[in-house]
Amino acid sequence: MTNPTAAMIVIGDEILSGRTRDANMYHLAGQLTNHGITLAEVRVVADDPDAIVAAINETRGKYTHVFTSGGIGPTHDDITADCVANAFGVGIDIRDDARAVLATNYENGAADLTSARLRMARIPDGALLIDNAISKAPGFTVENVHVMAGVPNIFASMLEWLLPQLAKGETIFSATVRVDWPESAIADPLGIIAKKYPQLSVGSYPFFQEGAYGANLVVRGTDADAVAAAEADIKSAFVK
Amino acid sequence: MTNPTAAMIVIGDEILSGRTRDANMYHLAGQLTNHGITLAEVRVVADDPDAIVAAINETRGKYTHVFTSGGIGPTHDDITADCVANAFGVGIDIRDDARAVLATNYENGAADLTSARLRMARIPDGALLIDNAISKAPGFTVENVHVMAGVPNIFASMLEWLLPQLAKGETIFSATVRVDWPESAIADPLGIIAKKYPQLSVGSYPFFQEGAYGANLVVRGTDADAVAAAEADIKSAFVK
Repeated sequence: MTNPTAAMIVIGDEILSGRTRDANMYHLAGQLTNHGITLAEVRVVADDPDAIVAAINETRGKYTHVFTSGGIGPTHDDITADCVANAFGVGIDIRDDARAVLATNYENGAADLTSARLRMARIPDGALLIDNAISKAPGFTVENVHVMAGVPNIFASMLEWLLPQLAKGETIFSATVRVDWPESAIADPLGIIAKKYPQLSVGSYPFFQEGAYGANLVVRGTDADAVAAAEADIKSAFVK
Repeated sequence: MTNPTAAMIVIGDEILSGRTRDANMYHLAGQLTNHGITLAEVRVVADDPDAIVAAINETRGKYTHVFTSGGIGPTHDDITADCVANAFGVGIDIRDDARAVLATNYENGAADLTSARLRMARIPDGALLIDNAISKAPGFTVENVHVMAGVPNIFASMLEWLLPQLAKGETIFSATVRVDWPESAIADPLGIIAKKYPQLSVGSYPFFQEGAYGANLVVRGTDADAVAAAEADIKSAFVK
């Protein structure tokens, strides 16, 4: 596969503490798959500058894109923008274009930009702004790192604006076959099918529902004919 | 805070592809918080040996515990046990005690242990088994790395068995105050409150619902009196 790759960094004490169930990871994963970008890794890190900077620097050289969610609001715990500037070794300051965009969110425009609100116009040097159709305060892109809000509907809105601008990979086709046998009964023939299609990923995702074992067998890849052929092989092997 | 720390490694192509919404992370995060263990980092990695081994080796020296979910079934894509053995540089083979436990899951006992099922009795040298009350196939612990199944009810069952055996940290108290003001209106006074209680973490988690901005302000820490005092300060500042 030569599709573009990506990592996601979720900045989120509230997820690590178990208070909140993450929504942005699931949303991003589906959107990237549709766009032909392979999400290779997700990291959830604490609201801690060292952890955030390390996660950015360990991923940005490894993947085509890095997407972050969270920590770009106006409160004391919103430290993502500073961490991104730090990771890239660039300055950060209130920027005129970000300030102008932000002002459109308030009744009296720039006159309503308190110091807290202006924190949301602090942008690392050289960044491109990401549009926020909902609450105006922009996200931004530094090189291949795309910095977005953590509030799920704002994250989704920023992604909807950003994604069409990123190069698409080949379409990833997939097929899912549900089998109501325990995995151990299908493992050997499934392994043979997986070997037959080295260009595909063949996964078995077991479940245990209402006292019965089963598995979803998922075939994925950019070769649509191979996906269809593997799906047919799986059905003929396991589905009566 | 001197509480024990933890990382989680989710082994999951199905999560990275957007097919499945992770459930184990949310469950583990809540359970660890209740046990006084600080979950510091989560990584979701692909079903790729190099990625799994690297994630284990990058986290196991850094945290008191590492918990993994996924990849210990009988199919060709279940590679976690081999990766753990590889990460620790130890051997792996079918082990008698694991085989005996596994046999209790089948009508004819050991006679029903096909080669696929026996894959689930392959345990890295020196590991301790983790009980699986649901489908018998054990998880295991190597040093500080606890390897559990990905199926959510089996993961939860293994964790329920394991967690009481791990040293508890101090209880983490928390209080949440919902405010129906935009974050920018509360940022400055909230920052002052956060500075007043350096022993606590004070987070602001904004939301945007039905056209209105608000935030959940969350205070967390092991000092119950300080949590109560900070909660009172927040209420008197922001709640009429």
